[in-house]
Amino acid sequence: MAEKSKILVIGSTGYIGKFLVEAAAKQGHQTFALVRESAVSDPVKGKLIESFKASGVTVVYGDLHDHESLVKAIKQVDVVISAVTFGQILDQSKILDAIKEAGNVKRFIPSEFGNDVDRTNVVEPAKTNFAEKAKIRRAIEAQGIPYTYIISACFAGYFLPTMAQPGATAPPRDKVVILGDGSAKAVFNLEQDIATYTIKTVDDPRTVNKSLYIKPPHNIHSFNDLVTLWEKKIDKVLEKIHVPEEHVLNQIQGSAPPMNLIISISHAVFVKGDQTNFEIEASFGHEASQLYPDVKYTTVDEYLQQFV
Amino acid sequence: MAEKSKILVIGSTGYIGKFLVEAAAKQGHQTFALVRESAVSDPVKGKLIESFKASGVTVVYGDLHDHESLVKAIKQVDVVISAVTFGQILDQSKILDAIKEAGNVKRFIPSEFGNDVDRTNVVEPAKTNFAEKAKIRRAIEAQGIPYTYIISACFAGYFLPTMAQPGATAPPRDKVVILGDGSAKAVFNLEQDIATYTIKTVDDPRTVNKSLYIKPPHNIHSFNDLVTLWEKKIDKVLEKIHVPEEHVLNQIQGSAPPMNLIISISHAVFVKGDQTNFEIEASFGHEASQLYPDVKYTTVDEYLQQFV
Repeated sequence: MAEKSKILVIGSTGYIGKFLVEAAAKQGHQTFALVRESAVSDPVKGKLIESFKASGVTVVYGDLHDHESLVKAIKQVDVVISAVTFGQILDQSKILDAIKEAGNVKRFIPSEFGNDVDRTNVVEPAKTNFAEKAKIRRAIEAQGIPYTYIISACFAGYFLPTMAQPGATAPPRDKVVILGDGSAKAVFNLEQDIATYTIKTVDDPRTVNKSLYIKPPHNIHSFNDLVTLWEKKIDKVLEKIHVPEEHVLNQIQGSAPPMNLIISISHAVFVKGDQTNFEIEASFGHEASQLYPDVKYTTVDEYLQQFV
Repeated sequence: MAEKSKILVIGSTGYIGKFLVEAAAKQGHQTFALVRESAVSDPVKGKLIESFKASGVTVVYGDLHDHESLVKAIKQVDVVISAVTFGQILDQSKILDAIKEAGNVKRFIPSEFGNDVDRTNVVEPAKTNFAEKAKIRRAIEAQGIPYTYIISACFAGYFLPTMAQPGATAPPRDKVVILGDGSAKAVFNLEQDIATYTIKTVDDPRTVNKSLYIKPPHNIHSFNDLVTLWEKKIDKVLEKIHVPEEHVLNQIQGSAPPMNLIISISHAVFVKGDQTNFEIEASFGHEASQLYPDVKYTTVDEYLQQFV
């Protein structure tokens, strides 16, 4: 059996990046985390970097805008995973330049971790963000870099504790706001599971130049299903406030950035059903729990139990 | 008396841009709105563009990334106001390039419309966004372009209808979440008033190369003041849930982008008091209601009345 690929994570101290670093180390890959030198003195990121080192991860100092540092880091690995934040999507062209110069990368995973940006009904302002991700996809393909796009759907740890009520601090116990009629199915995956599947795929020839959709069967729920599930857990019927689509579109227009971005993504997910409204075909992708049935993922039902 | 400056608004169909276009036309400036041709077919932006035309505004087609279109648009005016969204802050270097080539701009107002990015205790991820605005400031200053920075503080129409409870759809009637102890003073200005002051300043020599702080006396309130004001209006005492600063910082870390951006801005405003924790000195700025006492601004008290 071939040795496991060495992995570099860029954006390693970010929301999803830290889980990717952990998962890579845990699955026995020699793992490298690119961090900015300035992050070391940051109270939170500094602690994270220490925990990386304690897990045997090699911390390499560098920056997206420092070409030499990128090339140097990339030359040490086989696989590059980018988890840069949404404001840096286009800056990933710098990573592509460095990958080209390094010449040794067997797989690149760009920062996606959301909806399929090639199959979407998203409206502005998220439309522009999605288009940026699509633009990076096209650049990767044009350069012939072997890739996998990770379509992780909703982060469970972000959406479920508040039942997708932005700004709430706990799941609702009285009333719940539902965008649209609540029948569109969405997918909610725990961040750690998303990271596990992402690392699983880096040495898997089946996912070269394909999308990996993380849609395990127990995590696909309409908003209405989700509310029913929660109601059963707390043994209480919630008041449902449905927001018609036209109203949602007006809310997007009337909200300042970046709240309008959040609502426009919610519109795509919960009104348009963009996470489930097309079939995955083998020509462009595979479903993660089918490829890796050995992964014991956390179900939505299990996840919600902690809040009862 | 000199003729009023001709004004170009870039980002004209955005959240604050549309108010700037309206205010410029209303105050009798020959007004130009830069819009992307693709915006015309967008249902909402298309309607907005029609309303611009109906107000006598000249719509010019162009794009931040189309240098010739920018230069051509800028050559027709005296003043350029940028209201591009937070993801395009650094792209304003393209505007600076075009202003340099055009050579005729008497005042440039970059996209700020928030806190003073040179005087802030903001943490990540907003820290990076603020640093981008500061970087554009430094580029403007280095090029010697006459500027005014608009420090508009909080958008009333964004914060007040929900009493800064992100994601809420109405002001609270039962309980209210307060970041920190609620004593830091913030400033809440109606979007239309922000636009009015911004346009007032473009031909005012007192604000060349200065910041304009919009802090009219009746709009400065601590969060606790705001809640008390609202409680009096609805004749009800709300349950107050204070979130300690440490907890707010953890929330920022635990939230996915862009919600973490919203919370980090709220932390700077409502916990650190960044909108009021320094004195405005004549060497770097002026307060808008002092410079333009004739402007009848909407007070927080008046604004909240509509929700009673």
